[in-house]
Parts: sequence; C-alpha cells; structure tokens
Amino acid sequence: MKQLTEANRRAKADARLIALDWGTSSLRAMLLGADAALLDARVAPLGIMQIGEGGFEAAYRSMVADWLAEAKLPAIAAGMVASAQGWLEAPYCQETAGARELAGRLAKVALSDGGALHLVPGVSLTEPRAEVMRGEETQVVGALTLFPHMRREAVFVLPGTHSKWIRIEDGCIRECQTFMTGELFAVLRQHSILGRFAGAGEPEATATEEEDSAFDTGVEVARTSAGGISPLLFSARAKVLLGQLPKAASLAYLSGVLIGDELRNALAHPIRSVVMIGDARLCARYRRAARQFGVSDMPEVENATRVGLWAIAREAGLVK
Amino acid sequence: MKQLTEANRRAKADARLIALDWGTSSLRAMLLGADAALLDARVAPLGIMQIGEGGFEAAYRSMVADWLAEAKLPAIAAGMVASAQGWLEAPYCQETAGARELAGRLAKVALSDGGALHLVPGVSLTEPRAEVMRGEETQVVGALTLFPHMRREAVFVLPGTHSKWIRIEDGCIRECQTFMTGELFAVLRQHSILGRFAGAGEPEATATEEEDSAFDTGVEVARTSAGGISPLLFSARAKVLLGQLPKAASLAYLSGVLIGDELRNALAHPIRSVVMIGDARLCARYRRAARQFGVSDMPEVENATRVGLWAIAREAGLVK
Repeated sequence: MKQLTEANRRAKADARLIALDWGTSSLRAMLLGADAALLDARVAPLGIMQIGEGGFEAAYRSMVADWLAEAKLPAIAAGMVASAQGWLEAPYCQETAGARELAGRLAKVALSDGGALHLVPGVSLTEPRAEVMRGEETQVVGALTLFPHMRREAVFVLPGTHSKWIRIEDGCIRECQTFMTGELFAVLRQHSILGRFAGAGEPEATATEEEDSAFDTGVEVARTSAGGISPLLFSARAKVLLGQLPKAASLAYLSGVLIGDELRNALAHPIRSVVMIGDARLCARYRRAARQFGVSDMPEVENATRVGLWAIAREAGLVK
Repeated sequence: MKQLTEANRRAKADARLIALDWGTSSLRAMLLGADAALLDARVAPLGIMQIGEGGFEAAYRSMVADWLAEAKLPAIAAGMVASAQGWLEAPYCQETAGARELAGRLAKVALSDGGALHLVPGVSLTEPRAEVMRGEETQVVGALTLFPHMRREAVFVLPGTHSKWIRIEDGCIRECQTFMTGELFAVLRQHSILGRFAGAGEPEATATEEEDSAFDTGVEVARTSAGGISPLLFSARAKVLLGQLPKAASLAYLSGVLIGDELRNALAHPIRSVVMIGDARLCARYRRAARQFGVSDMPEVENATRVGLWAIAREAGLVK
C-alpha cells in the first residue's frame, strides 16, 4: 500500500468519499472520486460478527487509515453495521424510503479523531407483511441512479442469503418480500439429511450437465406444486433412494426446488419487468430458472452499492 | 437385571418375541408375551449412527442377552436398521404394502450363535411422488391391528423429524406424503438467523401463554398463505424487529408456521378422519393447530410399533 504508483497517487488526490459496504461477514471499503468513480477498494473478513478487540473503530481504521492520511474525507456505510448488533443502531426508515428519506436519517458515529462515519438506516415495512432490510435499500438507490427510467415503477430481485424482491414506485421502496432461499439451502446442505448424499466441500464453480438437468427438474417440480416447498424437500432424498436422481446432483435439484419456489411465489402476480442486483453466478441461476416461468429477460445491475452510497452521500450534502 | 422378582421370572417364562424399534438415534428393545403383551423393555442410544466397535451384533446382544439366556426366542426389528446404512439392507416393499406383504419380505440377519433377527422392509411409493419410509409402515400395521375398522380407509399422521401422512386402503399403504417439519424446525433453530432470538437450550415442556399465542398466530399465518413457507419464514425475524412478536416467543411462532403449513398442505383435500401416531406432546401441538382448520378430532394411537411388530411376526409365522 505504501508504494503507490504515480497514477494511484493522482487518483487519491481526486478522492471525494469513503464508502463502506459493511455486512454480517465482511467489510468492503471503497475510495470514490467524482461521480462515484472507483479509485481504490479492499475487502476484509471484518463483518459485524467478526469484530475483534478494539471494536468497530479499530476495524474501520485498519481499512481506511492510509486513505484518511491523504485527505480529510467524508465517510458513509450501509449494511448491518447500522443494526442493533452493529456499531450504532440507525432506526429503520419506515414505509416509504428513497435516496432523500435515507439521506435525511443518516446516523452519525463520532470518531475519536473528531471525524465521523455516517450510517445509512435500513428500511422497515409493515404492509402487507412485516419486512426489514439493511443494505438492500442502498443497492436499490444505486440501481435507480444508474437507470432513472426505472424510478416510476420497477421490481428488483436481490438474490442471496435472504433474497429480497423490492417494488419501487416513484423512486421509493413500497413493498418487499424476503425469501430465506440462500440460508435454507445452506442449513439444509450442511445440517439436514438432504446434504448426506453430497460431498462436504463447496460445489464446483461450473455445474455439470447432470447438475443442470437436476436443477431444471427441481425448478419444474416447484413451479407446478401449489403447496410450496414443505411437501417437496424430502423428494431430494426419496428420488435418490429410488434411483430417480443421481446422488451427485441431489443438491442441484434442491437448489432448483428452492429457487423455483421463490420464483413461483414472487411471480404469482404478473410483473412487467424484473431487474436483478447481485452476484453474477447466482443471478445466472435465477435467470435459468426464470425461463421456465416464461420470463426470458432479467437483466443485472452492477455496482449498485457503490453508486447508491454515493447518491445518498450527495443527497445528504456529504459530497457534491 | 440378575435379581428378577418372582413376577418377572414368571413373565419371562411367557416370553414369545423380541421386538426392536431400531432407528437412527436410538434402539428400543421389547420382550413380548402372547398377544403382544409387554413383559420388559429397555432403550439405549444405540441408533444405527451410534454403533460402536463390535458392530450391530454386539449392540444387539448388549440389549437382549439376558432375554435370550432364558429361552430361544424369535426376534424382529423395524426402522432404519434395515436401510443401506443399517445392519442389512431390506429392499423396500413397493407400491402396495400391508402386514402380509411386509411379512413376506422380511430380511434375515444370521447371528453368530445360529439364531436370526428378522428385519421389516421399508415401503417405497413412486406415485404421485417418490416417497420412502422405514419404521412407519410397522406403526401403521400396529394401528390397523388395534383398530380393524380403519382397514378399509384411513389417514394416519405420524408427526416428527420427518412427519408422514399415510393413506390406507383395504389394509394397505397406498399413498404417503413426507414433510420435513421437525428437521426444518431443528436446523432453523440451531443454525439459521431465526434461532438468534431464542436461548440455546431446549424449549420448556410446558408452553407459556405468550408462546401458545405466538404458535396460534404462526398457524394462522400459514393457513391463510397460499404460497407455502418460503415467504413466511423471515417473518419470524422481521416481526420481532418491528415489535410485533416477543423475542421469547419467536420459536413458538416458527413452530406454528411450520406445522400450520404442513396441515394446510395435508388437509388441502377433504379427509374424513385423521388418526395420529406419535409422541404425545407433539400430537397435542398438532391437535391445537388442527382446530384452526376446523378439524377438532384427531385421536392418538398408542403402542403402534409394539403391536405392529407382533402382527408382522405373526403373519410371518414367527409367533402364533
């Protein structure tokens, strides 16, 4: 880090904002220039559940000290760092939230050197069901900043541990539906009888043809089942025992069942268009499954968190 | 064990059958007299996943040696002991199974002293879905032996780790549906974010009023949700964060959601009557939930395994 190249040194001189994506398991720090240009970035396993001695401020400084040494910069963070288990709890923005509402309710952490870190609040909704988010609101703001034509009406899906479907109206979050698809898959794979047939390791990055086929079958089974997943999960075991599914593909089948069930629920009411925000490989799985629902077009938005943090900081007057 | 009372000694002289309920986590051994009368019983954590040095025969002998010392007795076992991971794999009875079919397909383990242990095969079905069972078929045979009027048509629910709904026609198993309700609850409680609000220990034997109320709410939410559990699970967290559900009752709510969803699926088609076989406390939870579905009468059958093992042994000519 000390041996900056000349290009890097020039870039650092243009720095305008420190932007943090601070979740449960990791902390990603970005140094941004004008218009959210990415000047530098680093990531560490310093999620809010992994904070060691010295606490949050030590973790923060370990990531950004050299950036702050160059210039006094405003700093903003989104994610679980603003939860009750995080650095400081930022109360949820309730019912209606866009960039302006979020910017108006930043929580401010006072640092020991007189500086500050601003935390983006999460969003809570009570209708039609209890829902909460921390971090996803910032991704949505980023996506709407990149594609302003979606402000009037849009549905975003953010697949992951807790997959969220978020409906936008007039630039604000109006409805959310959370599916624990990623976490369900993880706990069933690691801790239930359904993981027994598979190796203990992580799945390969590239699915085999056998796995793709089992995934498609799982999606199909979920798509045509009105009852949801609970009568389907056991089939990931029974089908193997009866020779209807190869052992090695049982987790791909389970993944298909879970993602298929999420899509069946989320697409139960017609949606004009769905835009994805998330990990490219996971988005590709969702796109593959969505084709069975007649949805052939689910584009992906990249850099949503970075642009969202910038947009909220700008709305709050932290940057121009 | 050596100091048998006179009554016990007489009882042992009447012994006709050694009957074992040998599952994944425990082994229950029963000494039966005429008409399945229970003369003695013992249980040990010697499930098929806990078999130590010496293997299955050593475990078996440790449980029944003194019974066999009194008399040469036939022996029969049901459960996962007859699976591929058990002592000897007994191929599934396919599609149609009653006491006669099961008795005709017992697998015989030859013991080192010239004796034998007979294993009840499980049952597999492929229509309308892939299903397998090992142990539940014996419970059903027992229930039908105790209540012959149910032979023509009946539905049994066996709540547990893998809750099974089994439809009987003309004394045979015709259809089965497995719900991983118990295992889902366990893995979500122990390994997912939904368990975070609750203490690590086992729930108290008696539910508090707050827990009963949360359980009922969970059942109601599942009963009225057409989409199944995947859009509901996260509400066990969101409702707590938004003050709609007490932390201490979040697992009771989750239990209500899971049992409610199982009932919504299983009772989707009208069923004339449902009879339960299983743990009394768990049956009481199901009965409480079933009332919300307008089902006020779900009686329980006791001693189903013991009577089922006896009935199959009699059908096979092992006892008279």
